[in-house]
Amino acid sequence: MGRVTDRREVLHIQAGADGATVVRRMETITGEEPLEIRVGRAGGRKAPLAVTMRTPGDDIDLALGFLLTEGLIDHYQDVVTAQLCAGTDTPNTYNVVDVTLAVHVPEPVTDPARHFYTTSSCGVCGKASIDAVRTRSRFDVSSVDSTVDAAVLAALPERLRTGQRTFARTGGLHAAGLFTTAGEAVCVREDVGRHNAVDKVIGWALRSGHLPLRGHVLLVSGRASFELVQKASMAGIPVLAAVSAPSSLAVDLADDAGITLVGFLRGPSMNVYAGQQRVRV
Amino acid sequence: MGRVTDRREVLHIQAGADGATVVRRMETITGEEPLEIRVGRAGGRKAPLAVTMRTPGDDIDLALGFLLTEGLIDHYQDVVTAQLCAGTDTPNTYNVVDVTLAVHVPEPVTDPARHFYTTSSCGVCGKASIDAVRTRSRFDVSSVDSTVDAAVLAALPERLRTGQRTFARTGGLHAAGLFTTAGEAVCVREDVGRHNAVDKVIGWALRSGHLPLRGHVLLVSGRASFELVQKASMAGIPVLAAVSAPSSLAVDLADDAGITLVGFLRGPSMNVYAGQQRVRV
Repeated sequence: MGRVTDRREVLHIQAGADGATVVRRMETITGEEPLEIRVGRAGGRKAPLAVTMRTPGDDIDLALGFLLTEGLIDHYQDVVTAQLCAGTDTPNTYNVVDVTLAVHVPEPVTDPARHFYTTSSCGVCGKASIDAVRTRSRFDVSSVDSTVDAAVLAALPERLRTGQRTFARTGGLHAAGLFTTAGEAVCVREDVGRHNAVDKVIGWALRSGHLPLRGHVLLVSGRASFELVQKASMAGIPVLAAVSAPSSLAVDLADDAGITLVGFLRGPSMNVYAGQQRVRV
Repeated sequence: MGRVTDRREVLHIQAGADGATVVRRMETITGEEPLEIRVGRAGGRKAPLAVTMRTPGDDIDLALGFLLTEGLIDHYQDVVTAQLCAGTDTPNTYNVVDVTLAVHVPEPVTDPARHFYTTSSCGVCGKASIDAVRTRSRFDVSSVDSTVDAAVLAALPERLRTGQRTFARTGGLHAAGLFTTAGEAVCVREDVGRHNAVDKVIGWALRSGHLPLRGHVLLVSGRASFELVQKASMAGIPVLAAVSAPSSLAVDLADDAGITLVGFLRGPSMNVYAGQQRVRV
């Protein structure tokens, strides 16, 4: 798919104390385009729900993963069809996914801040932050008793990198990889946005009947934010590992949801911030 | 401000072929909390506009920068007051900024996808991506004739790092730095989100009467996405530099808006993707 990467002419400069070398050359860069997700009933009008800037590819999985991790659907059966909009204009940019929801699924409220507060009086002011922003998972991750060897975790970043086909060419892409607790790669996805890469993995798992993802480890290439822990929670993933640092709210939510959170996973070295009982040394 | 960083007990593991060392120790981590931005008229009810997950600190600037780069305000005079909500519950988490808009400012439409399509018939489908998602800047950056030496650019990443007070302690924070074209640091801000760090810088510039930011370079610690080029455009910044890779849409928008886009700025080495006439070698 050509839109995953693109080619651009750049001026490559190597500056030095006494002069510089300048080369005009072609470089491969990462594709980024908007994806609009629209939802509605069979036969009815599809209403825009969200737009995300993403790297094209696996767009249906991205939409499904988004809907699941935002708490709008619970099962694959909640979706009647999900397809790229055929378009009415030319050329079609394939940047819209239309999702037809089953009649039993509540119509989503397209309010920009719907998850983030429960009263309109004072928003998140004065509330515990986690309660104010989190969506509720139907999976209880805290009771999942799978464990993972530290040595297995240590090998995952290299395996994630191996699975990143586009990064090697552009040097500019996030990745999310789903692994078994034995360290086998199950699904690796890349995107300009970490949250999109994770949604693509979780959408794939939803579509393939793999939820909840007990017995799995999700590795992300960058930092671990609140949002990523939330997505892991919604998919029932017991172990989330990140190559870089976690945030305070990511640690708090992982504690709260019973998720094992590993950060600074760099070769044999790692920090376990929450759910330490699942990491075998 | 204690909430910029936090302390957590972690299990630090160093795995090896024949066993592992495990140390329980305290680590400093980056603060992340939700910030709700609410807008309204003097004396009227403030309506929630957006919630962003951010590192606490410079919250007023973050809100102002967000409003400006989203095209909701143009001048500092468009804002009557902007303040952290005093809260009605205890404890107050200081996670809400209330902005009172001047009467001449159009009420923002709190539609989640308002910027992203201009008809409801088929969304971004079939439209040129940039036109579909971009906001329009009142500053014409393309006519700005400031230039910057490649040698000056080469020195900026080190200066940005020096200005990052929190990164040194946590290893987990994005940064945005505003520099003169002579390489002087004007404003450096950190955040868990790159877009927030940029909004904090731009909000500071708005409040300090520095807009448009002609004669300045904005450096971001990570990748250059469409969104960051858009923010640079809204603030009239002629040169955007990133330590890592740009996306295709970032390059396209930079071309379109007449912004100089530098990527992979690592010491003396850099790629110039757009607006190459502003980089002096």
